Amino acid sequence: MAPTYLSNDRAAVDSFLDKFDVFLIDCDGVLWSGDHVYDGIPETIAMLRAKGKRTVFVTNNSTKSREEYLKKLSKLNIPADAEDIFGSAYSSAVYISRILKLPQGKNKVFILGEKGIESELDAENVPHIGGTDPNFKRDITDADFKGLADGSLLDPEVGVVLAGLDYHFNYLKVAHGLHYLKRGAKFLATNTDSTLPMHHDFFLGAGSVMAPLVNASGQKPLELGKPSQAMMDAVEGKFQLNRQRTCMIGDRLNTDIKFGVDGKLGGTLHVLTGVDNKAAWEKEDAIAVPSFYADTLSDLRIAE
Amino acid sequence: MAPTYLSNDRAAVDSFLDKFDVFLIDCDGVLWSGDHVYDGIPETIAMLRAKGKRTVFVTNNSTKSREEYLKKLSKLNIPADAEDIFGSAYSSAVYISRILKLPQGKNKVFILGEKGIESELDAENVPHIGGTDPNFKRDITDADFKGLADGSLLDPEVGVVLAGLDYHFNYLKVAHGLHYLKRGAKFLATNTDSTLPMHHDFFLGAGSVMAPLVNASGQKPLELGKPSQAMMDAVEGKFQLNRQRTCMIGDRLNTDIKFGVDGKLGGTLHVLTGVDNKAAWEKEDAIAVPSFYADTLSDLRIAE
Repeated sequence: MAPTYLSNDRAAVDSFLDKFDVFLIDCDGVLWSGDHVYDGIPETIAMLRAKGKRTVFVTNNSTKSREEYLKKLSKLNIPADAEDIFGSAYSSAVYISRILKLPQGKNKVFILGEKGIESELDAENVPHIGGTDPNFKRDITDADFKGLADGSLLDPEVGVVLAGLDYHFNYLKVAHGLHYLKRGAKFLATNTDSTLPMHHDFFLGAGSVMAPLVNASGQKPLELGKPSQAMMDAVEGKFQLNRQRTCMIGDRLNTDIKFGVDGKLGGTLHVLTGVDNKAAWEKEDAIAVPSFYADTLSDLRIAE
Repeated sequence: MAPTYLSNDRAAVDSFLDKFDVFLIDCDGVLWSGDHVYDGIPETIAMLRAKGKRTVFVTNNSTKSREEYLKKLSKLNIPADAEDIFGSAYSSAVYISRILKLPQGKNKVFILGEKGIESELDAENVPHIGGTDPNFKRDITDADFKGLADGSLLDPEVGVVLAGLDYHFNYLKVAHGLHYLKRGAKFLATNTDSTLPMHHDFFLGAGSVMAPLVNASGQKPLELGKPSQAMMDAVEGKFQLNRQRTCMIGDRLNTDIKFGVDGKLGGTLHVLTGVDNKAAWEKEDAIAVPSFYADTLSDLRIAE
């Protein structure tokens, strides 16, 4: 069925809002692009909350912890509570500590990623190496090649390689990840978005940053962010939501909309301020089709 | 037809050597692993030359120019002449200067790669940026994100992104490459080997280093190294070889052996000192099957 267009249609927006109690909202490409918040977004979120809706921010961006996300939301005047934020770094940390439950002596995580992942692993008491460690911020040397090949540079306690968006990826760090995978570490990813919306443009997303690891190892990571239903199950468990009365809002079909469709939510809303345009779901082999769409999330303000 | 096994079979080796005048020989994984030359290799090459065979080194490794390759061969006591070396950096430079023939004002090459590519482009008088420029050896900043998004950091004369093995790839460099591609630059690759044999182990090859660019852009590069027949045509043109009397020797099915099979050479020899083992061509959907195989290239010395 073709999605219902909400922009400039008061009746459609009212009916849309009546259908749902909870909105799961993607951030990059929906609320903002980089540090640029879209027009009317703070007011739109405030309007939803004033109507008694629960707004949960569900993001695949793993560079920030929930706490740092809360700071960003506040800075951009978007009303939110700490417990309303659910990121892929948090989702991954919870999966590792509560589901994987690695044995002592094999429970360290090698991180290809940023501070957000480190903070969330710390919060779950999961030991980790790599990540933002300044020792990895350098060129690879012949001694590194040797030490990786003979294993002397590798920490025998590493049981997981967790990859996410990393602005500091380099040959040395990726070569470490590759060698941990070759020695049997599990390969997990916070998310595999290929691009990252920023400054009204697209840069390299987590999926692109970890592509060397996937390519060289021949392994694909288990994804723990959208559209993985491991994340949906975790969100449902935490917020005790009624899926029929829940709507996923996002800008990407292959992460956000697929996440909502696969999770059998009551609905999905595609906003056109981010990665995908209408053509993406109009084509025959679209990965997922939303039930609603709007030019921007702020178009819901017609219901104010 | 199952390949003929040459190791420890004097009659088979004699018959093999009689069939060919020219041997195209891959380097990494055949002659050496990193800086470690395999046992008996210098003597084997000397033996082939003593029998009047032409030995041409055909390598996908783009980090070294032909001149640097000659130095490496000499250092490892492998007899060679400068004109007997054919690398993917050289092949790419020739393709850009003599086949692409970019218009003035749109003829710069942005390099994701090392010195070897720069030297070969210089030899063909092709202007280039990126590569080993120290200005790219740093973290990406918010000003970079802005300048790439609005184009102010981009050189309008870039018409090609040429990617090869780069030990210094990082977010900043790859983001530049991505934005040149988005503005219509042609995407070329010296080669797309996923791994690099070194110290009896495997590291990230060119294909893995450029994987972020492929993943984020959704574009695949035109490959100019093995198994691309653009490289075979260039080799044939330069050496005036009789393909029926030529044999390709290598360790990888998807580059070396496929290169020889697609090029309709008289034969291919797979040596087991590198990436692929016998199982790779024994399986039903093997990408290419060699006509001969041996445990190591040095096993040809039985004919001495």
